[in-house]
Amino acid sequence: MAFILAFIILGIYLFRTTTPQQEASGLGRATSAYITVASFLLGALCSGIAGFVGMWVSVRANVRVSSAARRSAREALQIAVRAGGFSAIVVVCMAVFGVAILYATFYVWLGVDSPGSMMVTDLPLLLVGYGFGASFVALFAQLGGGIYTKAADVGADLVGKVEQGIPEDDPRNPAVIADLVGDNVGDCAARGADLFESIAAEIISAMILGGTMAQRCKIEDPSGFILFPLVVHSFDLVVSSVGILSIRGTRDSGLISPIEDPMAIMQKGYSVTIMLAILTFGVSTRWLLYTEQAPSAWLNFALCGLVGIITAYAFVWISKYYTDYKHEPVCLLALSSSTGHGTNIIAGVSLGMESTALPVLVISVAIISAFWLGQTSGLVDESGNPTGGLFGTAVATMGMLSTAGYVLTMDMFGPIADNAGGIVEMSQQPESVREITDVLDAVGNTTKATTKGFAIGSAALASFLLFSAYMDEVSAFAQLPFKEVDIAVPEIFVGGLLGSMLIFLFSAWACSAVGKTAQEVVNEVRRQFIERPGIMDYKEKPDYGRCVAIVASASLREMIRPGALAIISPMAVGVIFRILGHSTGQPLLGAKVVASMLMFATVAGILMALFLNTAGGAWDNAKKYIETGVLGGKGSEAHKAAVTGDTVGDPFKDTAGPSLHVLIKMLATITLVMAPIFL
Amino acid sequence: MAFILAFIILGIYLFRTTTPQQEASGLGRATSAYITVASFLLGALCSGIAGFVGMWVSVRANVRVSSAARRSAREALQIAVRAGGFSAIVVVCMAVFGVAILYATFYVWLGVDSPGSMMVTDLPLLLVGYGFGASFVALFAQLGGGIYTKAADVGADLVGKVEQGIPEDDPRNPAVIADLVGDNVGDCAARGADLFESIAAEIISAMILGGTMAQRCKIEDPSGFILFPLVVHSFDLVVSSVGILSIRGTRDSGLISPIEDPMAIMQKGYSVTIMLAILTFGVSTRWLLYTEQAPSAWLNFALCGLVGIITAYAFVWISKYYTDYKHEPVCLLALSSSTGHGTNIIAGVSLGMESTALPVLVISVAIISAFWLGQTSGLVDESGNPTGGLFGTAVATMGMLSTAGYVLTMDMFGPIADNAGGIVEMSQQPESVREITDVLDAVGNTTKATTKGFAIGSAALASFLLFSAYMDEVSAFAQLPFKEVDIAVPEIFVGGLLGSMLIFLFSAWACSAVGKTAQEVVNEVRRQFIERPGIMDYKEKPDYGRCVAIVASASLREMIRPGALAIISPMAVGVIFRILGHSTGQPLLGAKVVASMLMFATVAGILMALFLNTAGGAWDNAKKYIETGVLGGKGSEAHKAAVTGDTVGDPFKDTAGPSLHVLIKMLATITLVMAPIFL
Repeated sequence: MAFILAFIILGIYLFRTTTPQQEASGLGRATSAYITVASFLLGALCSGIAGFVGMWVSVRANVRVSSAARRSAREALQIAVRAGGFSAIVVVCMAVFGVAILYATFYVWLGVDSPGSMMVTDLPLLLVGYGFGASFVALFAQLGGGIYTKAADVGADLVGKVEQGIPEDDPRNPAVIADLVGDNVGDCAARGADLFESIAAEIISAMILGGTMAQRCKIEDPSGFILFPLVVHSFDLVVSSVGILSIRGTRDSGLISPIEDPMAIMQKGYSVTIMLAILTFGVSTRWLLYTEQAPSAWLNFALCGLVGIITAYAFVWISKYYTDYKHEPVCLLALSSSTGHGTNIIAGVSLGMESTALPVLVISVAIISAFWLGQTSGLVDESGNPTGGLFGTAVATMGMLSTAGYVLTMDMFGPIADNAGGIVEMSQQPESVREITDVLDAVGNTTKATTKGFAIGSAALASFLLFSAYMDEVSAFAQLPFKEVDIAVPEIFVGGLLGSMLIFLFSAWACSAVGKTAQEVVNEVRRQFIERPGIMDYKEKPDYGRCVAIVASASLREMIRPGALAIISPMAVGVIFRILGHSTGQPLLGAKVVASMLMFATVAGILMALFLNTAGGAWDNAKKYIETGVLGGKGSEAHKAAVTGDTVGDPFKDTAGPSLHVLIKMLATITLVMAPIFL
Repeated sequence: MAFILAFIILGIYLFRTTTPQQEASGLGRATSAYITVASFLLGALCSGIAGFVGMWVSVRANVRVSSAARRSAREALQIAVRAGGFSAIVVVCMAVFGVAILYATFYVWLGVDSPGSMMVTDLPLLLVGYGFGASFVALFAQLGGGIYTKAADVGADLVGKVEQGIPEDDPRNPAVIADLVGDNVGDCAARGADLFESIAAEIISAMILGGTMAQRCKIEDPSGFILFPLVVHSFDLVVSSVGILSIRGTRDSGLISPIEDPMAIMQKGYSVTIMLAILTFGVSTRWLLYTEQAPSAWLNFALCGLVGIITAYAFVWISKYYTDYKHEPVCLLALSSSTGHGTNIIAGVSLGMESTALPVLVISVAIISAFWLGQTSGLVDESGNPTGGLFGTAVATMGMLSTAGYVLTMDMFGPIADNAGGIVEMSQQPESVREITDVLDAVGNTTKATTKGFAIGSAALASFLLFSAYMDEVSAFAQLPFKEVDIAVPEIFVGGLLGSMLIFLFSAWACSAVGKTAQEVVNEVRRQFIERPGIMDYKEKPDYGRCVAIVASASLREMIRPGALAIISPMAVGVIFRILGHSTGQPLLGAKVVASMLMFATVAGILMALFLNTAGGAWDNAKKYIETGVLGGKGSEAHKAAVTGDTVGDPFKDTAGPSLHVLIKMLATITLVMAPIFL
């Protein structure tokens, strides 16, 4: 699919008009087409590798974790964290080095900054293809992986747990292998690709904004502003590694003491990372963003970074509050299970919707305060207007992502621990070993939920940046000012309506893909139990392969429809309104409608993703809370209602929700790359 | 609450500044304050009466319908339709006459159009208080009524149907009276108030737009443009009455023949109404909108009306497609119940989200085509720019609402038939009588769902109109041009984010209010069954009063939080950003952020309401479909899963969803009335 799209992009770029800037810099139509296509393919390739690495590490680490759990909980934790950390560092590395290598190559090859060729401040725009390639592959990885894992999980649970009453990960369940494979496909591979493209997109958009601002302010050496994001993320590699390595284990300590639960250990590591990140961020701003025109600007930008780091911390804390059963919301959700399936679902849906409020307030305060810190930094353009506002938001985004390595580690840790538990169960280890992996699994559930909060927060900020890059790009192509997106114009309002609708339709298709595939799995598992009655007495081996084949082919088939919707609809809307605008004398109509579509989709996407992720996480943990013995414990009516909630939450939190993170960034990059066809 | 708010409004208006126009027309600060407060209170009173009439008629009609059902289905249908029709006509009447009387009073009292006093084109702006009063009371009626009815319904079903296995409306269920009362409170009273304020708000906004446009185009006699909405709705009274009376019944016909099902009879009446509406709409446009400056403008506006009527028809059809079990979506939903509670909920949620797509496409096409029909009508302002666009959209809204009387009749019919069924069950009539009321009840479910589609479509259009009235109002007060709402400005983008979040939070609180109250009802019903074991053998009478008291007090208590959120948050956001704008030199910032909040909330509200209404209706009918005997019929596992879906759908479709219709219009009117405090 990436190759097909590459040809389409090539076609569009070969037949578009060039901007006066490009002509001045001698960058021909063909050159810019090949550059865009090459970055697109490289981005797609790296995104694929990011997913592959996540899975490669995970399937090797989970056996070792389950083996270590036989000796010491602490050691098991350490192995799982380090394995997650390895994938995380590789992913962040690829994002940083991919962009850096492309940048350096283009710099040398195009003879940037030499007379008669392009300026360095225009260079980052050529990297957009890389971000689009990354999001394109990440979208399909997340969609396909999400459908795979949750269809297997829901199908296995509905027949195994609910109908047959066998425990989770029991080897008698024909769908158990598909479920375990799914954890790797859906969580490790997909989240790796997801955060890879988050970081890549954010680096590129911040470079574009830095370049534009440096140009407007006539800063003598703009390279500091352009290269700043790369430096921040290089430091991220270092500080996250320190954080990961600060989690140590000794063989002799035996079980984790009750005071020091794994979550506390993980959070201690996070605190170490955050402290170091604040320090290195301050150093980087002073080093790269100091300019004689505005001597105190770097301090303002350092504060923007702090805003971002605080935002990240607040997002992690809020997700934890709404999804951890140590806090009130999940306890109330568990309580509502005691009056039936219906009240459990109602309570979960309202919990999820309510949980959107605080993150939105946090992100609102972050956007406005970072913008104003930037605006008052003292950087002014030729006519004396303050211009640093948007770059301030960009720096806040970088601050938020400056601990991405550690956050991704916490995320990758979850499925490794989950799988280790499965291996322990299937290899019939003693109960005490299973207890250790269960504790790690529960922690993994919370960290997975918090990481999603982090991912959606950074997606919100990154999209806001890409959006202004898009406006600059359109303005450069059309040679018309494009300063505003006025939603009081009916067509632009309609664009917003369509953008929001896109989010609902995409979520619907993603959820129903899981539902449909799960029904297939349920029927297959039921069939096997009936046709092979020996399975329940361990006399016959179930046919695991059939379930794996069903979910693999179904996920590849079902991801097409939502994926195509995401890619085709912005292009279709842009072209239709371009034609409508042409016939009614509004030259920029297509581009403006797409801009409004993009912003409304971003807003609706943030809210919908928060709703889906939190509701799903809360249902999962409400079930786990009841399994600890409250409200009747396992097997009670309340537990059955809680399992229903968990099943509903599965496609919410692991298919539709995380796909929306990728979708909103892909919408931003696709409009940026496809801008020529809207004009 | 309305009185408290009236004092607040009085205070705000007594201390605000007056516009130059007002000073020129001799309209003092005190006069305009009293006018606004008086219209507000009158609107609130009429909205209350609309709700009261709906209930008054319904509780008298349902006994007669159940009595008629003993003789003939056709007669029962006729009585139910005519009773619904009576309330509908009263509600539409009040909207039309309320506005007309206020308009006439102000016209004479203020000496409009005489030298030195205000112009007739400014008069409609004084009526805004009426619309706000109407929405204010409607919001609480819908919230309180919705919580009342669904808490009783869910509570009664969860214990009665699921735990004890007694049929619906069985007199042994202690919550049955609360459930039946709830149908009147939630459906008749609330929907009456809802559509009353829809029509009132739409009339007023169209009058404002007509006045503004007539003034810009320097039309000699603007009264035709201003009074057009009143005439259209007066015709609505006539054509809807004809449609209602076209449904006739004779005593001797016995059972309804299988060919002619009640739905077909209702739709025949709707077709009659639509045909007549098209005719009278054409006549009204020629009569009132003909102007010598643009001789063919009336024809364009007549076409706009046709666009609106087609939109209404399309909305009704789409809701029917997604909620009627004669079509594919509900059948697939029923099928998904056979694999468990979880897959049923997943399928229902994705069905609801998917169902937002077509209505959004329809409304997009309607807005754009009506706007362009208006724009090309030939009406131009002084400098020759076409200006009829927005008025075209207004005329389309009027077209959509030109059959409001009949649509409201179909809606009111539902709860009357539902209650008649309850009376038949409780008075232990033969099975054949119950069958007749069951058929009517099923039709009522579909018409209720379709009416909600209609209500949300008209709310979308009406809000778009009120939005431009708001921009005109702000511009007049601030004496600054207010032509655009540019979402590329961070603060305005944040306003949009907050507006969308408001919808999610409001829906969450509305749903959780139902969930919490239902849990109280469940516990009370369980307690009564345990403490009075004679209930199940008809030896003891359950204490119906306790359940009624629980839902009545809980609904009054629980409606405060979402209601207060809806009223306080736009004011708070406006004032905060006004202060922020003041300190950063952006004079209109508060008003602009509120505008963006309003538009994003409208978009998110439309989508969320469509999702909630359709999912709820589909779950309800999937359950009814299984009860017809497919997939195992009543009592099967699939039926239990379907009942869970129905329970979840109850607060969706009857509490949160319809409250959102009112919310988005109330947001539009509250910002219009409170505009002075944002400046």
